[in-house]
Amino acid sequence: MEQGSSAKPPSGAEPYPHAGRRLRVGIVGGGRGALVGRWHWTGMRLSNRWDLVAGALSSDPDTARASGRDWMLAEDRAYVDFGEMARAEAAREDGVEAVTVCTPNWTHREIAEAFMAEGIDVICDKPMTITNADCDALIAARREAGVVFAVTYPYAFHAMARQAREMIAAGAVGEVRQAIVEYAQEWATGPDDPGAKGPKWRRDPEKVGRASATGDIGTHALQMLEFVTGLRVARLRADFHVCGADKPMEDTSFINFALDNGAPGMMWITQAAAGNHCGLRFRIYGQEGGLSWDQESPEILRHAPLGQPERVLVRGHGAGILPAAERMACLPRGHGEALSDAWGNLYTEIAVAVSARRSGTPVPDGLLALPDIETGARGVRFINAAADSHEAGGAWVDLAPA
Amino acid sequence: MEQGSSAKPPSGAEPYPHAGRRLRVGIVGGGRGALVGRWHWTGMRLSNRWDLVAGALSSDPDTARASGRDWMLAEDRAYVDFGEMARAEAAREDGVEAVTVCTPNWTHREIAEAFMAEGIDVICDKPMTITNADCDALIAARREAGVVFAVTYPYAFHAMARQAREMIAAGAVGEVRQAIVEYAQEWATGPDDPGAKGPKWRRDPEKVGRASATGDIGTHALQMLEFVTGLRVARLRADFHVCGADKPMEDTSFINFALDNGAPGMMWITQAAAGNHCGLRFRIYGQEGGLSWDQESPEILRHAPLGQPERVLVRGHGAGILPAAERMACLPRGHGEALSDAWGNLYTEIAVAVSARRSGTPVPDGLLALPDIETGARGVRFINAAADSHEAGGAWVDLAPA
Amino acid sequence: MEQGSSAKPPSGAEPYPHAGRRLRVGIVGGGRGALVGRWHWTGMRLSNRWDLVAGALSSDPDTARASGRDWMLAEDRAYVDFGEMARAEAAREDGVEAVTVCTPNWTHREIAEAFMAEGIDVICDKPMTITNADCDALIAARREAGVVFAVTYPYAFHAMARQAREMIAAGAVGEVRQAIVEYAQEWATGPDDPGAKGPKWRRDPEKVGRASATGDIGTHALQMLEFVTGLRVARLRADFHVCGADKPMEDTSFINFALDNGAPGMMWITQAAAGNHCGLRFRIYGQEGGLSWDQESPEILRHAPLGQPERVLVRGHGAGILPAAERMACLPRGHGEALSDAWGNLYTEIAVAVSARRSGTPVPDGLLALPDIETGARGVRFINAAADSHEAGGAWVDLAPA
Amino acid sequence: MEQGSSAKPPSGAEPYPHAGRRLRVGIVGGGRGALVGRWHWTGMRLSNRWDLVAGALSSDPDTARASGRDWMLAEDRAYVDFGEMARAEAAREDGVEAVTVCTPNWTHREIAEAFMAEGIDVICDKPMTITNADCDALIAARREAGVVFAVTYPYAFHAMARQAREMIAAGAVGEVRQAIVEYAQEWATGPDDPGAKGPKWRRDPEKVGRASATGDIGTHALQMLEFVTGLRVARLRADFHVCGADKPMEDTSFINFALDNGAPGMMWITQAAAGNHCGLRFRIYGQEGGLSWDQESPEILRHAPLGQPERVLVRGHGAGILPAAERMACLPRGHGEALSDAWGNLYTEIAVAVSARRSGTPVPDGLLALPDIETGARGVRFINAAADSHEAGGAWVDLAPA
Repeated sequence: MEQGSSAKPPSGAEPYPHAGRRLRVGIVGGGRGALVGRWHWTGMRLSNRWDLVAGALSSDPDTARASGRDWMLAEDRAYVDFGEMARAEAAREDGVEAVTVCTPNWTHREIAEAFMAEGIDVICDKPMTITNADCDALIAARREAGVVFAVTYPYAFHAMARQAREMIAAGAVGEVRQAIVEYAQEWATGPDDPGAKGPKWRRDPEKVGRASATGDIGTHALQMLEFVTGLRVARLRADFHVCGADKPMEDTSFINFALDNGAPGMMWITQAAAGNHCGLRFRIYGQEGGLSWDQESPEILRHAPLGQPERVLVRGHGAGILPAAERMACLPRGHGEALSDAWGNLYTEIAVAVSARRSGTPVPDGLLALPDIETGARGVRFINAAADSHEAGGAWVDLAPA
Repeated sequence: MEQGSSAKPPSGAEPYPHAGRRLRVGIVGGGRGALVGRWHWTGMRLSNRWDLVAGALSSDPDTARASGRDWMLAEDRAYVDFGEMARAEAAREDGVEAVTVCTPNWTHREIAEAFMAEGIDVICDKPMTITNADCDALIAARREAGVVFAVTYPYAFHAMARQAREMIAAGAVGEVRQAIVEYAQEWATGPDDPGAKGPKWRRDPEKVGRASATGDIGTHALQMLEFVTGLRVARLRADFHVCGADKPMEDTSFINFALDNGAPGMMWITQAAAGNHCGLRFRIYGQEGGLSWDQESPEILRHAPLGQPERVLVRGHGAGILPAAERMACLPRGHGEALSDAWGNLYTEIAVAVSARRSGTPVPDGLLALPDIETGARGVRFINAAADSHEAGGAWVDLAPA
Repeated sequence: MEQGSSAKPPSGAEPYPHAGRRLRVGIVGGGRGALVGRWHWTGMRLSNRWDLVAGALSSDPDTARASGRDWMLAEDRAYVDFGEMARAEAAREDGVEAVTVCTPNWTHREIAEAFMAEGIDVICDKPMTITNADCDALIAARREAGVVFAVTYPYAFHAMARQAREMIAAGAVGEVRQAIVEYAQEWATGPDDPGAKGPKWRRDPEKVGRASATGDIGTHALQMLEFVTGLRVARLRADFHVCGADKPMEDTSFINFALDNGAPGMMWITQAAAGNHCGLRFRIYGQEGGLSWDQESPEILRHAPLGQPERVLVRGHGAGILPAAERMACLPRGHGEALSDAWGNLYTEIAVAVSARRSGTPVPDGLLALPDIETGARGVRFINAAADSHEAGGAWVDLAPA
Repeated sequence: MEQGSSAKPPSGAEPYPHAGRRLRVGIVGGGRGALVGRWHWTGMRLSNRWDLVAGALSSDPDTARASGRDWMLAEDRAYVDFGEMARAEAAREDGVEAVTVCTPNWTHREIAEAFMAEGIDVICDKPMTITNADCDALIAARREAGVVFAVTYPYAFHAMARQAREMIAAGAVGEVRQAIVEYAQEWATGPDDPGAKGPKWRRDPEKVGRASATGDIGTHALQMLEFVTGLRVARLRADFHVCGADKPMEDTSFINFALDNGAPGMMWITQAAAGNHCGLRFRIYGQEGGLSWDQESPEILRHAPLGQPERVLVRGHGAGILPAAERMACLPRGHGEALSDAWGNLYTEIAVAVSARRSGTPVPDGLLALPDIETGARGVRFINAAADSHEAGGAWVDLAPA
């Protein structure tokens, strides 16, 4: 392999501390036919800090067993029932230290509670729950259990998203004065594939809650916005639309918002825009500059300092990359990282947090930027606020601080 | 010079008819220090269908004379007073056949009326007037005078904007289901240059009317949206903001709209987004595809037919370019055209319309797509509707059909 | 029209001096069916410094007359014979001050000589001649006549090509250490259109000389390379190929070269690369940085200072644009200029040179960067050196300084 | 996690067969301070088909032990001596089935031979050896041992590189008529970091052989060229240059070549071009179209069918992606894959080959496109041919078929 630029961070960024062993993790959900399990597994594998050793991969016994073989789990650790898994693993000396919950959203709460009750750290997919009440319950349960509770918003773990956050915090655009965020996909433009399971429950308000696309991808846009600006959406108004083929819930939403410093912004969420695949993008402006990023070109962050030529920052070491973003860079500049690597970074930070709790060693300040249960709750409250607004004809609705 | 691809349209697009002589045109406004005159003059020159022979370039006699020399006008046709110019030119056998009005917006009405009263065709900069009442008055005056009245929205004269319009009309995206339009600039991010005249009146509601950025560039976004989709904005809601340095009127507006087929959309208008220069962009989506364009890369139109790879159409002849867009292409593909060429196309179409009226020969159906007085009125009504909405806290406001 | 950023150069770049009247120019070539005349005419019109008043547009009397009407020439100044035109115009008090020669390349010499003999300044298309001997003869004739002799390499008149030249001269990349230049088109990939005149003589060595694509577009690449680096190609080796449909002369050449400071480089010239339209591009590297530009995105120049993020410079005023490039900027940043504007800049500089000679006022140092007869000769010698090398199996051949 | 587009290949591409267990692999090289080990480990982890269980990570005992802990190896399998490792592992029932050799290039031969002698499959970094004679020896040794011998050219395992290969094979450009390949980096522009080990041996002909950049990255360019075109370089001529800071071996080479179908091409190899990070790019042209790709935007392949708009193919399922490339796609379109994923694909294909040999089940035709020992030898012969040519003043040199 060629050398590329040096892998050694020139600016003194220390890598993440390593426990010296891999942590044991289990998974609930993610069985055969489920895409979402693969995301988590990729993060576990790439971080090299986890061994996936147990799972309740399906509530169907045959699928559970077959999926367990896919994941190369020991037979006695391929569970059918998550409650049994929680109890059995807690009882084992080599039981899982953390569990990934990547079942459909409306089941997250009870599963997470079962594992927290056993003192097992939780890694929960997003959106965290369906209702605000479930968020409150989970927050209370976590406070009691004292466990780590991470919510998997992976896009924030692209190194250049971290770079954006650090640059904004350091004043690269001045105070944020407006923000444009969008997450555009195309897959719901045409009629749903009748055989696809995912879309079916995504259109069922009984299951998915009060919003479809807004919950599915809008929550990513919200998290990214709040993550990079360091600000919170204080209020919003939303209109839900069906722009693709007929369906019972929205595939598109147009959201106006005000950040808690008063800056206004717009958010465009759609799954019915042909030619867009995973178009999570932000553009943030202050009186001293602008910053923009597109998750489909995740290695590049554009910085326009007012009155100067735009700078194109590329992930890697040196050349304007700040220590927190250098720390996340595994490959040299130009040797592209993308979403798998972001999942790796996410599972690395979770491992650091879990190890720290278990060893009683505090994590150094500012090392991690891990979406926690409060971040998870922000997403749920955002969905419900957007639905409230939509139902009220697009009225402004407050988004309570988590 | 190298050959490039053939300049002969392979698809049978006939060029615009030519009168065999250049038309005589005058100008009101555009004297020394004014940028806007140059735009018009570029269009006149590039179209090769106009001779600029008279002007009331300034109400200050010294500036008028000096500017007349800049424009190489005959001394006796460098007027100080536009009314005198209208009368004197109408009296000359070789008087102007059309006049370009590019004074500050609040003066357009009386100037246009003076020339229409003399039977002289009018080429009016945008926004056409300040108030809706002025639009009504102008429309009535034009009906009586029977003259050509063109409003100069140049971006629609980029060949690839015409291509977009023709493709949408031909069903390239199916029925339009949502539209995202933006016009972003950066020049109002910092404090206004105290010596600059333009910004001063643009911040003065007495002069510029009820909106600043929304009128200045938002009208372009509206016209482009309606031009390419062939639809009309039926209603809108708008929030005005100051996102750049403090100023008495908005530099940013966030506008939600519904088109008259029911499709929703968003419009982002700002002059305070660092790194944006002349970012007029549209993205139009239907159930069969998407189409996007950015005026800073005007030669390229992106077409994403659902389920197929995106196509990158480039201005020129053949390779998917439709006859109406081929007709506008002066240079071979890749030999870049840009805004000067768009102004040239605009003044070509105006010349065709003026010649047709004067010769009594009707223009062939579908040959021209010239923004007329109704289009001009759309822009004014849009500004006032946006201001109404903003003042009503972002309430939905109908935008009456022009 | 919206304001955009100020048109006033903040850095003190004074515009080009203006003679206060338009110069009278004639044209030889460029009649009906010829693309090349339009390029020149666009430059004349956009510069606003020329009136085209005479022409020998075709050696066929009917075409000459018809073309004269197209160009709106007076009937007695639509000549059939260029020699007669030279004499007649020289005899008129209002005769042409300069003549544009845009006939097929092998006729340039005798036409230019006829006009120079009458003291008329010459604007000659490229390549200037077919043989090196013709160059020598023209150079001698011009020295004797003392006229201005400009060769029309328009791409160097994109403002951002001038910016590149100024930046390299100012040390933006350090000393140039390697250069990659290419000019790629696609039009010769398939079989020639049997009706097209241009391709026919371009494949006829009797007429076009010893190279086809290398002369047609390779000369542009050479001129751009030498223009932006301020260096000269000292030696080269070339291989000619036919990569598109069968044809008697090369459509592709691969050229290695050494600049006169010893830096090596590569040049790729082709008219048989599908997907390339007018792909004139350079990438210049020194030990302190790199600079790259693509004529299909002419407003953008990319500057990579070693160890820092890449900067994207955009034509306009301020934001790193140097005075010589600001002077060429007619429209505000983002209000795109392209090839028509480059031709306008070229004809502006020619007008300044012609006016200066005729008024006896010297042009200020460094104001113009006009390709002169020596530049024209470089192109011809380059073609012949490439052919020499190709015929010698790709041997290194010296390219004598012009 | 959002759903994105379906992960199920609609075109019937079956995923790679899976052995049902992870294979045991060892590594020689890759200890602390070595970047290269991480590449391999990433591929092993992401493929989920390997357990790294043994290593001779350094010839220094302390480093070997410490590195073993980094890699979480059992203590008795963290060897100091590769020969001992080969013998010990072969003797274990749970010994490694394959070994990755990622030591400096001049040591590959003896290490590979030691493991092949024990019947262990070999995964060898590139360039495979220093001399052609070593290639011959390795080829003979492998023939005798009958083992799998894979050479790690990872860029060919970007899904869209495979797509390019399949499209060219299917006639998307017609017969290949010219090819432009480049691999440009910037890291050798300035003086070498005195503490960096890599650069030191890369400048030492005793160790690295007769070429530096040409071997390091030129071999990737060669492999990619031959991989996507399905053709072989038949002859070449090369000039070596130092364009960055002074150094004893070339950092840049300019190579002309002819493919075995007669098509010409150019290759630009440099590590001294500021602003280039990992710029491996190809542009392939035939008489029916062109195809281009840039490893820094690995998800995108541009296809220009002659006379039609360019198509932008994006990795994923459907929308023109061929089965062999769909098979490599792990994430839905737009959920970016990059170099880590390419390494994963590479190690997946190696696992399939190793499993097939060990189980005696033949691999289905056309399933794998694994660089084998012959591909490895092509790279070495290319380096030596380039050096031969350079030393002969850039003379044409045949590149014998491997």
